[in-house]
Amino acid sequence: MTFVRTQNRAVNELRPVKLTRNFTVHAEGSVLVEFGDTRVLCTASVEDRVPPFLKGKGEGWVTAEYGMLPRATHTRSDREAARGKQSGRTQEIQRLIGRSLRAVFDMKLLGERTITLDCDVLQADGGTRTAAITGACVAAHDAITRLLVAGKIERTPLTGFVAAVSVGIVEGTPLLDLEYVEDSACDTDMNVVMSGAGHFIEVQGTAEGAAFSRVEMNQLLDLADAGIRQLIVAQKAALES
Amino acid sequence: MTFVRTQNRAVNELRPVKLTRNFTVHAEGSVLVEFGDTRVLCTASVEDRVPPFLKGKGEGWVTAEYGMLPRATHTRSDREAARGKQSGRTQEIQRLIGRSLRAVFDMKLLGERTITLDCDVLQADGGTRTAAITGACVAAHDAITRLLVAGKIERTPLTGFVAAVSVGIVEGTPLLDLEYVEDSACDTDMNVVMSGAGHFIEVQGTAEGAAFSRVEMNQLLDLADAGIRQLIVAQKAALES
Amino acid sequence: MTFVRTQNRAVNELRPVKLTRNFTVHAEGSVLVEFGDTRVLCTASVEDRVPPFLKGKGEGWVTAEYGMLPRATHTRSDREAARGKQSGRTQEIQRLIGRSLRAVFDMKLLGERTITLDCDVLQADGGTRTAAITGACVAAHDAITRLLVAGKIERTPLTGFVAAVSVGIVEGTPLLDLEYVEDSACDTDMNVVMSGAGHFIEVQGTAEGAAFSRVEMNQLLDLADAGIRQLIVAQKAALES
Amino acid sequence: MTFVRTQNRAVNELRPVKLTRNFTVHAEGSVLVEFGDTRVLCTASVEDRVPPFLKGKGEGWVTAEYGMLPRATHTRSDREAARGKQSGRTQEIQRLIGRSLRAVFDMKLLGERTITLDCDVLQADGGTRTAAITGACVAAHDAITRLLVAGKIERTPLTGFVAAVSVGIVEGTPLLDLEYVEDSACDTDMNVVMSGAGHFIEVQGTAEGAAFSRVEMNQLLDLADAGIRQLIVAQKAALES
Amino acid sequence: MTFVRTQNRAVNELRPVKLTRNFTVHAEGSVLVEFGDTRVLCTASVEDRVPPFLKGKGEGWVTAEYGMLPRATHTRSDREAARGKQSGRTQEIQRLIGRSLRAVFDMKLLGERTITLDCDVLQADGGTRTAAITGACVAAHDAITRLLVAGKIERTPLTGFVAAVSVGIVEGTPLLDLEYVEDSACDTDMNVVMSGAGHFIEVQGTAEGAAFSRVEMNQLLDLADAGIRQLIVAQKAALES
Amino acid sequence: MTFVRTQNRAVNELRPVKLTRNFTVHAEGSVLVEFGDTRVLCTASVEDRVPPFLKGKGEGWVTAEYGMLPRATHTRSDREAARGKQSGRTQEIQRLIGRSLRAVFDMKLLGERTITLDCDVLQADGGTRTAAITGACVAAHDAITRLLVAGKIERTPLTGFVAAVSVGIVEGTPLLDLEYVEDSACDTDMNVVMSGAGHFIEVQGTAEGAAFSRVEMNQLLDLADAGIRQLIVAQKAALES
Repeated sequence: MTFVRTQNRAVNELRPVKLTRNFTVHAEGSVLVEFGDTRVLCTASVEDRVPPFLKGKGEGWVTAEYGMLPRATHTRSDREAARGKQSGRTQEIQRLIGRSLRAVFDMKLLGERTITLDCDVLQADGGTRTAAITGACVAAHDAITRLLVAGKIERTPLTGFVAAVSVGIVEGTPLLDLEYVEDSACDTDMNVVMSGAGHFIEVQGTAEGAAFSRVEMNQLLDLADAGIRQLIVAQKAALES
Repeated sequence: MTFVRTQNRAVNELRPVKLTRNFTVHAEGSVLVEFGDTRVLCTASVEDRVPPFLKGKGEGWVTAEYGMLPRATHTRSDREAARGKQSGRTQEIQRLIGRSLRAVFDMKLLGERTITLDCDVLQADGGTRTAAITGACVAAHDAITRLLVAGKIERTPLTGFVAAVSVGIVEGTPLLDLEYVEDSACDTDMNVVMSGAGHFIEVQGTAEGAAFSRVEMNQLLDLADAGIRQLIVAQKAALES
Repeated sequence: MTFVRTQNRAVNELRPVKLTRNFTVHAEGSVLVEFGDTRVLCTASVEDRVPPFLKGKGEGWVTAEYGMLPRATHTRSDREAARGKQSGRTQEIQRLIGRSLRAVFDMKLLGERTITLDCDVLQADGGTRTAAITGACVAAHDAITRLLVAGKIERTPLTGFVAAVSVGIVEGTPLLDLEYVEDSACDTDMNVVMSGAGHFIEVQGTAEGAAFSRVEMNQLLDLADAGIRQLIVAQKAALES
Repeated sequence: MTFVRTQNRAVNELRPVKLTRNFTVHAEGSVLVEFGDTRVLCTASVEDRVPPFLKGKGEGWVTAEYGMLPRATHTRSDREAARGKQSGRTQEIQRLIGRSLRAVFDMKLLGERTITLDCDVLQADGGTRTAAITGACVAAHDAITRLLVAGKIERTPLTGFVAAVSVGIVEGTPLLDLEYVEDSACDTDMNVVMSGAGHFIEVQGTAEGAAFSRVEMNQLLDLADAGIRQLIVAQKAALES
Repeated sequence: MTFVRTQNRAVNELRPVKLTRNFTVHAEGSVLVEFGDTRVLCTASVEDRVPPFLKGKGEGWVTAEYGMLPRATHTRSDREAARGKQSGRTQEIQRLIGRSLRAVFDMKLLGERTITLDCDVLQADGGTRTAAITGACVAAHDAITRLLVAGKIERTPLTGFVAAVSVGIVEGTPLLDLEYVEDSACDTDMNVVMSGAGHFIEVQGTAEGAAFSRVEMNQLLDLADAGIRQLIVAQKAALES
Repeated sequence: MTFVRTQNRAVNELRPVKLTRNFTVHAEGSVLVEFGDTRVLCTASVEDRVPPFLKGKGEGWVTAEYGMLPRATHTRSDREAARGKQSGRTQEIQRLIGRSLRAVFDMKLLGERTITLDCDVLQADGGTRTAAITGACVAAHDAITRLLVAGKIERTPLTGFVAAVSVGIVEGTPLLDLEYVEDSACDTDMNVVMSGAGHFIEVQGTAEGAAFSRVEMNQLLDLADAGIRQLIVAQKAALES
């Protein structure tokens, strides 16, 4: 039996993807990314400083922070600032976003600068971390363009694109780009991050119910690969508009 | 000499005000409020529980939390969740929003429920706390309507409207609704919260430079009073649309 | 009907005010201020350093911290040091005290020094923040005198006096200098900070019950103005003794 | 050579001891204890609850908290509430005070109540922890008397008195009741807590410079024993006045 | 060119694996696991309580905590308890261990009990998280045996075995079970967790340098699969001894 | 009546003491110390930096940190890193270990270096702090030898040995080296730290039940003195092996 998706979405179909640039005015890059009802505001901030461990090395740094507005979700969750700490989940996600974006940066070409990618979820419906990576990449491109235009750097430190999508097995069916109800029901949940060149940057698969076989893994990677190619097309289109 | 405002705004003129309802889908009330370039997302969440000090008293509670996205501002500020605590400024603001909204609620009619107003600044250009109060009031109305429609309460616990605006003296000129550059330059800064009936709920005036006279105080209160009347008209219009 | 006050105090009458200088021996200024049963120990500490944002600018800084001994109140409250954080109320108050004192300082004349005003409530009976401001002003004068006598500064950086009082409306009657039982019962509570020259430094009015009218606001400001003039006379007398 | 003490105090002489009862009005017991220039406000608060581990056992609990006002010392120290945690020293001291007071309580006779002894140092000149224990004992007696008078307990849970003093070796000379300059200079520092019956409750000796011999230890214990006997006389006198 | 490993270890060779049961006496399961120089103490503690979200559901819970002694590493790292928080890395690892162990538990058969797996690294040389999972599985088996022997449960809630190993690409060569110097030098690092039945429970691959291809991914999974089969043999042998 | 000890241990008999050097490989000194079933891993780490208050003074620093694995005890205790703070007990113990070790160091001869002694309890059965001091001393000797061999210092900064033992009164009988069941039952508990020269470095005695007399104190000190002499013999033997 095959799981029936909302609005008859095909198993290998992404939700509608939307990338709105310049969503806010102050940041060097500001992108609202939407994967269906998931909406994440990704800003890229450029600062002329690096963390202590990089001082004087002539290299830059790229890092990410992730947050979720308390009522981005179906029921209100605690505000992390009020609780006084970020959850393990938040830290895991922001470390993932940071590593993913660093994978497309040449730190020497960036120079002694830090780019901070703030990914704040305004509305959540599954896949917030993969949407965040996909949107942050576009925000980073905008921030770098600004540095190039201002003559602060001569060559782009960006080595390409990075995008991400979730895949999973729900009631035995491998699906692309899980929305919340699918994510809650799935046996296996995998987040895949790939470069524009079609290589893997991160693969994080978890068997939440039954363990998964090598065959299933391959099916999931195929779905993710095809989905990410479409996301990269969407990123490029957004940057050209 | 009179201070010249951006876009030749008159001293007693509000910035364009926009109240977008249902900005996000999960919350019982969700309003994006804009005072010019200041944009705050206000959500109202209804929960069937009250804080410990109210348990079993048959009364409800209304509270607020406030946050600013790290890059809502000209330069990036630290994420409070990452630093592990809310600043004194944040706490001051969220206490102000909470008191202001409680002023238009009849807690007995609300019943044993908590309404939490989350006010998150997406973009800041002065007056975030007054915009937050103004938007939160509309979100609260939407949340209450939902409770009435669902038959969970019979009569509205809302006793009216509440709105807020900032006023201040810049280079000797009293001004309504300060934007960021005005706020930074002002000698006196006052936040005024009033009810739909035209009474004061909060007045918080601070001499950041020179102390201010009784005459100046009266000029500021006159400006605020007129501005708030317009904001309440805008709130009612938004709710009718 | 008029509210009857403890010991038949008139509506426009301050509680007995006492300012005891040199209450402790180590601080550059040390004043025990008493407004009736409210007793606050205010110390002024001078340190030859400024916060990072002022380094090398040739200017000084004035800041305040506020605390309440756990059993300063009718029932014991948690020790903030043990709980691991200062409450929103504490932060709000210490920010108010700091701003109020900075209003009477010329930071250039102070030079690269920080004056910290520690206001610790030994016994609380309403009006602790206004008593703290009033006592801290005297402690600051003592600390500055010591710097002048020691020849560390040539001219006083103090531009005058600052004092504060609470006013409020209890059962329809505007009252000066609320004690605890009045404060708990009041509809409107306002803290007013004024300079020796009779100008406003801070006005913080809150409708805890019914919203208040412009007429009531004026009555409250009149009461506060008259009360603060008496407090400033008391400050000067204390410094001359 | 013998160390010469301030005001020619003899090696076995206490500083002037003063115990002022009812120093503040709200607490069930409130004592200002002075050992020379060391001044500690000790309050005893009675609450009708016990910690979770004692619930339903019909026994009470006695605990202590200790704090130092930021400018109790020669140079200002950080406020622990602002730093967000109590230092190791503070915790060590309040654990010591708590154990010392528990040693003179019969928890069954106390019933399901907690007595909290708050010891806040207003002015420090050495020996704050021993002064605190000595003052807290008197405050505890006052709190218990109040319970007896109110008929809440029939028999006193207090089994006697407890007092404490510091002793140390400075430049080879064993001294009683060290003041700050002696404490800073001493090789060995010992805090001794004894019961009214002349037995040891706590002995905490530390070689800060040279290690100390058994002979020196005996000299120190002799000094402490004699000093504590005088302190207990002073406690009894204070309670009879 | 092929990377030469310490002691000429083959690319598909595990380091010597040692599983010492009953390493400490108090815990229901206590296993010292060694992967070469990596040594982790894994204890399983059984408690008759479940987290709030499971109360009254008749199900149990399995969770993990991870720590590293400050000098388990080449240079001393900060003690997390002293710093006041667990790092993102620590949280990521303990969440991984918890999920991995939960994958081999039938929570209904466990009953309302919590099993906590504490994995403390005594000495680190790469692969601490995979060693921890492998050792924790044996400790869990011992704890369950004790419950069975004591008659507290009738059937084992364990559905099988779980073990983990790291794989990575160093200088172009895919390697099994990375030690520290390999881990520091690798381009791709992957942690694989598999069940005794040969299925995947977790796959976490990260491109630290160059992104990796599907071919490389398959090579890494093959290496991991073979290594984990050997680890499961070692686990069974340890339990039979 | 005399208390009968486990395995008929004599009242003045130590548990079997074992000092295993080089228990882990990375630290400059690494000693597993065992007092019967109490097992503590003590590592000495040498770093070429000193705390801020010693910078530029040409002196070194010695400090200690203490931890207990969550399941070192009969029932699992919370992980301090997860709770976000060290308990008062932990801080008290690590301050004691630090002071004890500093007593045998000449900080000038150490030079601008910090030696950190990490004492982590793998298994607890009473006397963890005294075992920690005894083991840390051996680890410190190993670390210093390494500095001497490497030619980084010319003369040893160690002035001798330090060891510690607990003593106590159980059911009226003074006992040496309490194990857990004795410690829980004792009326008086005393930790004694002495130098190789037979002098006191720390004495911390606490009456947990009945207060103790001078005679009892002397009996306890005699027991401790004899026990510590044996421990120092064991330390020397370990270092010679």
